[in-house]
Amino acid sequence: MTDLRVVGGELVPPAPRERRHLLSIADLDRDDVDRLLATAASFALSQARETKKLPTLRGRFVLNVFYENSTRTSSSFDLAAKRLSADTMTVKASGSSVEKGESLRDTAQTLGAYGPDVIVIRHPEAGAAEFVARVTDAHVVNAGDGKHQHPTQALLDLYTMKEALGRLEGLHVAIVGDVLHSRVARSNVLLLSTLGARVTLVAPPTLLPVGVEAWPAATSFDLDGVLATSDVVMMLRVQRERMSASLPEGARDLGNQFVPSAREYARRYGLDARRMAMLDGDAIVMHPGPMNRGMEIAAEVADDPKRSTIVEQVTNGVSVRMAVLYLLLGGAE
Amino acid sequence: MTDLRVVGGELVPPAPRERRHLLSIADLDRDDVDRLLATAASFALSQARETKKLPTLRGRFVLNVFYENSTRTSSSFDLAAKRLSADTMTVKASGSSVEKGESLRDTAQTLGAYGPDVIVIRHPEAGAAEFVARVTDAHVVNAGDGKHQHPTQALLDLYTMKEALGRLEGLHVAIVGDVLHSRVARSNVLLLSTLGARVTLVAPPTLLPVGVEAWPAATSFDLDGVLATSDVVMMLRVQRERMSASLPEGARDLGNQFVPSAREYARRYGLDARRMAMLDGDAIVMHPGPMNRGMEIAAEVADDPKRSTIVEQVTNGVSVRMAVLYLLLGGAE
Amino acid sequence: MTDLRVVGGELVPPAPRERRHLLSIADLDRDDVDRLLATAASFALSQARETKKLPTLRGRFVLNVFYENSTRTSSSFDLAAKRLSADTMTVKASGSSVEKGESLRDTAQTLGAYGPDVIVIRHPEAGAAEFVARVTDAHVVNAGDGKHQHPTQALLDLYTMKEALGRLEGLHVAIVGDVLHSRVARSNVLLLSTLGARVTLVAPPTLLPVGVEAWPAATSFDLDGVLATSDVVMMLRVQRERMSASLPEGARDLGNQFVPSAREYARRYGLDARRMAMLDGDAIVMHPGPMNRGMEIAAEVADDPKRSTIVEQVTNGVSVRMAVLYLLLGGAE
Repeated sequence: MTDLRVVGGELVPPAPRERRHLLSIADLDRDDVDRLLATAASFALSQARETKKLPTLRGRFVLNVFYENSTRTSSSFDLAAKRLSADTMTVKASGSSVEKGESLRDTAQTLGAYGPDVIVIRHPEAGAAEFVARVTDAHVVNAGDGKHQHPTQALLDLYTMKEALGRLEGLHVAIVGDVLHSRVARSNVLLLSTLGARVTLVAPPTLLPVGVEAWPAATSFDLDGVLATSDVVMMLRVQRERMSASLPEGARDLGNQFVPSAREYARRYGLDARRMAMLDGDAIVMHPGPMNRGMEIAAEVADDPKRSTIVEQVTNGVSVRMAVLYLLLGGAE
Repeated sequence: MTDLRVVGGELVPPAPRERRHLLSIADLDRDDVDRLLATAASFALSQARETKKLPTLRGRFVLNVFYENSTRTSSSFDLAAKRLSADTMTVKASGSSVEKGESLRDTAQTLGAYGPDVIVIRHPEAGAAEFVARVTDAHVVNAGDGKHQHPTQALLDLYTMKEALGRLEGLHVAIVGDVLHSRVARSNVLLLSTLGARVTLVAPPTLLPVGVEAWPAATSFDLDGVLATSDVVMMLRVQRERMSASLPEGARDLGNQFVPSAREYARRYGLDARRMAMLDGDAIVMHPGPMNRGMEIAAEVADDPKRSTIVEQVTNGVSVRMAVLYLLLGGAE
Repeated sequence: MTDLRVVGGELVPPAPRERRHLLSIADLDRDDVDRLLATAASFALSQARETKKLPTLRGRFVLNVFYENSTRTSSSFDLAAKRLSADTMTVKASGSSVEKGESLRDTAQTLGAYGPDVIVIRHPEAGAAEFVARVTDAHVVNAGDGKHQHPTQALLDLYTMKEALGRLEGLHVAIVGDVLHSRVARSNVLLLSTLGARVTLVAPPTLLPVGVEAWPAATSFDLDGVLATSDVVMMLRVQRERMSASLPEGARDLGNQFVPSAREYARRYGLDARRMAMLDGDAIVMHPGPMNRGMEIAAEVADDPKRSTIVEQVTNGVSVRMAVLYLLLGGAE
């Protein structure tokens, strides 16, 4: 797996293989993943009860540090920690010393000096979580670092697939959309290939990273052609700010204009009712949220009671993050 | 009461009468209100003790979702939940997926997927709380939806009147100011009429809603004429952004210029010491805060130790919200 | 000490000497300080254990009110309260009624009506904490009021000096940089002189306050000349917005241009490796953070394992604030 660490042509500092942190999917072997999924499943049972809180991490302190706005991810981690009775604190870059120009090193050392048991960090730069892991004594969880990794997202996606389909080995997973800018795609490709699933990346050529040939995944520009054989269709969020209003679909080297117009994008790469009808048997539709309804996914697909697992992904995210915190802090399976 | 649900000419989606949520004052009958006030009174006693925290809702999870800035309301709910030992999380629209254009539906489903026991929601659109109640399994409390309703504000006002004056039946309550934009006024009119109090709305004609004739309240443009017979004078906050610097008081149809100049407004509709002297006996002065001192209320009125109940309203707000959370979660009286 | 309360030519409202609040270092006599340091030391021991949380303030409520962004200070207080099992709530001016123009008086009365045991307040105006102490029943801790005071910062600095050097009596402490705008400098000068340390203020003449002659401290414009005899060098943060890009060092009366260019400032008043080499024996380097590396302090000084106590200051800040909360709420030593 280690050769997979240079993904998308990015230079990523090497990390020793260890269980103290969750920095990248590449830190996990198959046994680690199995243990995580099993632990998450047992927490999911407790989450179905009326009183969802467990005393497991009472007295422990989880520090959430978010250099990017992501209420969705930060509240999921916050809730996971609280459900285990840990104390939490969330520091946002907006309104913090970060905006006074303090370096990541100084911020990390300051936060480390508080003596947290776990630091959960979201940061716009690849490698930020690994850096924090080097300069503090806390267990560190990468909650998204630039285009690099978002391991708990991939784990909750995996959990959701296994829950819906009963297996992972041999599944065909289509990941559709802006692969170039997506840490969700990078993390999922790594994890799915470790677990024996087959991945096809579907995107306009401008939204595939240089070097994608080396990833353990097939690529396609033709969504219709991929759907019939897919067990899972994972739609990625379109970053509207990267859309061009008028540009025809073009070659890779278009400067900032990565994609066709919004309407053209939806027509070629959006998942609508017509395309959903091409799916086979029990195939499911996933999306990490927040969704652009009508763009990458149509409302009737997002709300389809049989195929859409989008709400389940959110619920499973809490169980998976509970499992990550629990196992990092030394809990037995 | 149900015919009161089309207030101010607004179209409000119908809600079934039930106790699972607190969406509108119209959901409450007189017995409900009596139960709430009695429960709040018992919590108020516990709040007077040195250790104010009760174990009542230990292990429960209250999620506060605020699409508008209102530190006052959000911190009151947060504190009420914490005083009952519930866990809390506050999500603000600023810095959340909401700003990425996610729909209320998707946000509500995401938040519902966390499995909160209660969702407290403030939203700029009328009907938002009812919508959230339809798409999640949580108990929902409306903490203000557009110009529509703010039921816990009306309940804390009622609690404060009863505490100060010993009764509600037959009280004469003047509500003074920007009735047009005020969910506080709407909620209070509904609640007070249910409890047998008499309401007079005092406002410039431009700040009265179309259809006010159908409300169970008298109207007046003459504050001086109303004061002598009032037991309660409730001043509404002036939205300074709606004031015109130069416009003389005019007719209703003036586009965005709803009110006279600030000075003119204070002269005609502000409560100053001269006017306070016209009040009878034990009459009290209320304000939901935050105040514009010198505009709708003079400093010596706001701080009058005998008549002003403004600080008590804040304290009572915590007790009333504790009662709401407690009763929604199945507590007996 | 009371004659020291008019510092820097500022008019500060007089405060009665009492232990109910921590508003200014001038409130503390030597016995108070000894008690605080001893209590902080015992909490520091508990913070070194794996489970850092103590049940001491269970059921108490600490309200943090921050009118200025300071994640560093607000999170330190929040953590100190949580480590003692108190409930906490943090209200930031950004997004609160404060921005609707509510007066400090009304905000304070509102927050006081919540019945907090302690209010921790940071505010841009000198005297704000004293004002809040007058209008509420809570214990009040000044977490920084304008250029006036920041007593817990001075106490954590003192704790750090004593821990590193074993004594306070007779120490020579150089405080270097923008003394004019620094409440950290004001608080430290007061506290150090009470404890028998000797202080030299080192700054360009434009960054020394009028009336500094009356402070119990020497002044110097020559950093090199002070270093050899210093046991402690405390570097102050440069406010970059006060720097001029081109101005040569000038006289006091230069309007807004208080200081020389950034490069000139670093050359004259920055602590770099060459200057650090002039320090004697066990001398330590301190900084309240956040640092401008390369400006007032060089990276190799900030990270020096022998002399820099910058990370320890952060850790000690939590212990000292735990001690402050504990003693205010009636804990015995």
